[in-house]
Amino acid sequence: MIFLNLPIGVFDSGVGGLTVAKEIIAQMPNESIVYFGDTARVPYGSKSKDTIIKYSGQIVKFLQTKNVKAIVIACNTASAFALDILKTEIDIPIMGVIHAGAITAAKTTKVGRIGVVGTSGTISSGIYEKTIHEINSELEVIQKACPLLVPLVEEGLINDSVTDEIISRYVSDLKSRHIDSLVLGCTHYPLLYNTFRRIMGEGVSLVNPAYETAKELKSLLTCENLCADKGEVFHEFYVSDMAERFSDFASSIIPGVVKNTGIINIEEF
Amino acid sequence: MIFLNLPIGVFDSGVGGLTVAKEIIAQMPNESIVYFGDTARVPYGSKSKDTIIKYSGQIVKFLQTKNVKAIVIACNTASAFALDILKTEIDIPIMGVIHAGAITAAKTTKVGRIGVVGTSGTISSGIYEKTIHEINSELEVIQKACPLLVPLVEEGLINDSVTDEIISRYVSDLKSRHIDSLVLGCTHYPLLYNTFRRIMGEGVSLVNPAYETAKELKSLLTCENLCADKGEVFHEFYVSDMAERFSDFASSIIPGVVKNTGIINIEEF
Repeated sequence: MIFLNLPIGVFDSGVGGLTVAKEIIAQMPNESIVYFGDTARVPYGSKSKDTIIKYSGQIVKFLQTKNVKAIVIACNTASAFALDILKTEIDIPIMGVIHAGAITAAKTTKVGRIGVVGTSGTISSGIYEKTIHEINSELEVIQKACPLLVPLVEEGLINDSVTDEIISRYVSDLKSRHIDSLVLGCTHYPLLYNTFRRIMGEGVSLVNPAYETAKELKSLLTCENLCADKGEVFHEFYVSDMAERFSDFASSIIPGVVKNTGIINIEEF
Repeated sequence: MIFLNLPIGVFDSGVGGLTVAKEIIAQMPNESIVYFGDTARVPYGSKSKDTIIKYSGQIVKFLQTKNVKAIVIACNTASAFALDILKTEIDIPIMGVIHAGAITAAKTTKVGRIGVVGTSGTISSGIYEKTIHEINSELEVIQKACPLLVPLVEEGLINDSVTDEIISRYVSDLKSRHIDSLVLGCTHYPLLYNTFRRIMGEGVSLVNPAYETAKELKSLLTCENLCADKGEVFHEFYVSDMAERFSDFASSIIPGVVKNTGIINIEEF
């Protein structure tokens, strides 16, 4: 069926959502993707709920012009602020990155104490705590906003003593409260997986919502009989600014997949 | 005259331009100010020329609704990309922060080697090098983009070992090439003045474009007979997002001046 081979829309404030796109490509190689990164208005993590809802709505309108069959909000802040309202506005499946990570964290913890790291927006929304408590209200959730990690990743300091120092400061309270499960609640953070691994130690499970979200998407498409058959697979990438810089960074996250990146005037949507 | 007591419009991508507003208030206490910080679309330093021109044009339209008598672009990136085009579009005086800093640096250097630090946008525009060479083509200009400094300032790490380490890395090439004048080419950087002072050593003059721009504005208003007389002085502040956070941060830069901050939907202009 032609409809099944329509692409999945994936969006983020910038490059971070590529960690989700990468997992979708790895777990569902038959699926096509149209990705949008809002690089003109990045970052989302320090913006208000109203602004994020407006920006996300514009992006969803753009993705619908590309005839997507489903949408993944590959941004924790936008998932926290805009998912519920967007669900009521469109008639195709739409999912965020919070739910799958929250479920995995709730299943993983043995001591009942879960840490969550994310941007200021995601953490102040309290969305992970709320979602984890809907699953099991007895779990303790300890949150920490880490506003410097996105700039550090975007500056390329992924394996660097400064990033180690900043992460050590951010997680010191989580460590002293003996969590045993840590949600990497920002799509940039899987790029710092090894550093979090080393600093948190082997006793703490790291939850990567990008991986869990791709798994959840696969289940959803399967349940709703929306999986692509063996049609031609394509991956298109669009941004609102700085296409070349996006392509360069994207190539380091998903080698070989990002060829041309289109520029969209997203404020028109 | 009523016209003379109209306010000066000052804008920046966010809070950084407050260092310019602070200097204007200090040097011209009779002048009123309408400040706009584009906190919904901050930062400008990593965005393209076309995007910055568009955003700056919207802000100028907003400021004109406030009947400003002159405009100061209190953002190095916007000055670099948008000043020339905005000059052709409006009929009141408009100035950026580049020119005054460039002249001071050119006058200050004895060895003929000037360093410039700024955001990626300002540095890649080459505006300081171009402006300094228009003043004296024999001066050597060594530039360095410092994309982490704005996030570090906004995280409050103004006196911190991590910020010291990052600045030391950024300026190592400038130090080894023995500059004797350094332009702090981003409106956030005056907040790191003491750190730059310590790391660069006493032999290097630090040029603060915020201070120099306020001096240049005073000369301009005096020459054009536009100085305010002793009317009522007011300072109004507007942003595109996160008004409360702006007020808090602003109070630390200009204590006692920022009371209420209004929210503007800048995309409508």
